[in-house]
Amino acid sequence: MKSREVVLARRPVGMPAAEDFAIREVELGEPEPGEVLVRNVCMSVDPYMRGRMIDRRSYTPPFAVGETLTGGAIGRVVQSNDPDLPEGEHVESHQGWREAFVAKSTGVRRLGNLEAPASAYLGVLGMPGMTAYVGLLDVGALKEGETVFVSGAAGAVGSAVGQIAKIKGCTAVGSAGSADKVRHLTEDLGFDHAFDYHDGHLERQIFAGAAEGVDVYFDNVGGDHLQAALNCMRPGGRLPLCGAIAQYNATEPVPGPNNLAIAIGMGLTIRGFIVSNFNHRRGDFMRDMTDWVTSGRLKYRETVFDGIDKAHEAFIGLFTGANTGKMVVNLGD
Amino acid sequence: MKSREVVLARRPVGMPAAEDFAIREVELGEPEPGEVLVRNVCMSVDPYMRGRMIDRRSYTPPFAVGETLTGGAIGRVVQSNDPDLPEGEHVESHQGWREAFVAKSTGVRRLGNLEAPASAYLGVLGMPGMTAYVGLLDVGALKEGETVFVSGAAGAVGSAVGQIAKIKGCTAVGSAGSADKVRHLTEDLGFDHAFDYHDGHLERQIFAGAAEGVDVYFDNVGGDHLQAALNCMRPGGRLPLCGAIAQYNATEPVPGPNNLAIAIGMGLTIRGFIVSNFNHRRGDFMRDMTDWVTSGRLKYRETVFDGIDKAHEAFIGLFTGANTGKMVVNLGD
Repeated sequence: MKSREVVLARRPVGMPAAEDFAIREVELGEPEPGEVLVRNVCMSVDPYMRGRMIDRRSYTPPFAVGETLTGGAIGRVVQSNDPDLPEGEHVESHQGWREAFVAKSTGVRRLGNLEAPASAYLGVLGMPGMTAYVGLLDVGALKEGETVFVSGAAGAVGSAVGQIAKIKGCTAVGSAGSADKVRHLTEDLGFDHAFDYHDGHLERQIFAGAAEGVDVYFDNVGGDHLQAALNCMRPGGRLPLCGAIAQYNATEPVPGPNNLAIAIGMGLTIRGFIVSNFNHRRGDFMRDMTDWVTSGRLKYRETVFDGIDKAHEAFIGLFTGANTGKMVVNLGD
Repeated sequence: MKSREVVLARRPVGMPAAEDFAIREVELGEPEPGEVLVRNVCMSVDPYMRGRMIDRRSYTPPFAVGETLTGGAIGRVVQSNDPDLPEGEHVESHQGWREAFVAKSTGVRRLGNLEAPASAYLGVLGMPGMTAYVGLLDVGALKEGETVFVSGAAGAVGSAVGQIAKIKGCTAVGSAGSADKVRHLTEDLGFDHAFDYHDGHLERQIFAGAAEGVDVYFDNVGGDHLQAALNCMRPGGRLPLCGAIAQYNATEPVPGPNNLAIAIGMGLTIRGFIVSNFNHRRGDFMRDMTDWVTSGRLKYRETVFDGIDKAHEAFIGLFTGANTGKMVVNLGD
């Protein structure tokens, strides 16, 4: 069986370009004992992957030039050499950016009966959903009645953050990058207030939805959003730092907020996190989020690109605002 | 009885100057029922007071121009109209920048028998000592065996931070502003490593004392120290933000650290605090710190200016590095 894979052809400088990626076709062997052959149904592209394309020390090693990229994917077992993981099973893996793969059955996570379309397990029921969940509830220590501001609110993480806030009896304010997205947030997802950050006046817009100030600012963006949010926080506020998409493609260091000292007098907690440090909450997350999604209390949207040869376009689209909700690459059935 | 007081003559712009302050002589009345007349023995000047000289919203209202400044002071009751607070008692008050005052007895804190010289209750046994204590142990959540880096390490707060770290079985690294202060830190106070920040190469110097990285960075300085420390943190590190003396006199906004996104991948917690939010820890602090000081496990030094007319010089000296340990204004006996 053949599989097409996406290789990092060279390290992007600034905004990633098509030429930074290449397609390679590989021949897959038969699964050895304890292995399975998996055909991916869909794969994820996520903003954090941009960081791994840079050659630097971080919490995960950088992608290597000339090697196949990796990331979250949902697939089906099409050939099994492990009686405990039969053919037809859906599995989650970190073997994305490829159409199919052979791996040890212990290296994939069996999903059991799907309670939502497979792609949901890349988004609202997957890593981005869990990032929203632990970022807001654990890192942000959200309490009922508080006010949440989230940037990148129309993205996979941000749209879940605002809706979880509402489910928890809080006020949700979000920023996004277009009038359509803003409408989606308030009309479809129940945000109390949303605005297009291109209109400027970030602080005035935040206060328009959070007159008494913000208790939790969920930061997906960094840069001017973080600086503005610092000026809008209530005493004792928390700022989970989840991402800084505004500066992922910067080629020079970007100055930090010039008002960080506000954190002293206001007693603010600014806390960075990665979801993999919260695996102990996975059970709670899957139970709550599956309930919210299947009952319709929490909605999600996807932006889908079709085919492995469009994966790089989907990835680049994350930085141009091409997605509403989770960006998914469909790899067929 | 007459008292001389220091008035804010005008708001400083940049580094405070002598002309920003004026001495005023006032006539004190007799204490009414429930009041006491207190003669201050010594008063405190602290970096945070610079912030209160700016006309802006913060956790305490700004000082008013033409009004007497306030701050920590230790005094003795010289005339009492409250049988519960007899003459001769030492009291702590927030009625500094003046030689004497009349106040309700409920507005001062009775110190009881002094276990150290009165001025120690402005420093190691007072607000700066408690700032070090809760900042390191509560905000910094220090654990035995960890590595602490503290900036402004020869100051009232910093020198206590490093020594508490040692008492708690940790490694202490400090930065200060002169070779003499560096020697004081390592030879007198038991820091494992100290360096003069004027020598540059902050990160290299931090790693020289913290080869495995820093678990807690106690920030008294802000600016380049915070940026360098972020690059030296271990995963899960904590950064209590206590002060930002490097920028208190800035006339333009100072850019923040350009590497704040490190906090995401490393799971860092950056938490500002003010000591008054930790009053529930006052009993623990007084018990532990009195024990450490009287047993000689924790040493302190003072830089003393004599007389109310030197108070502004003492204050300005905080920003020129004139002090080792607590800066105290002695108001006589």
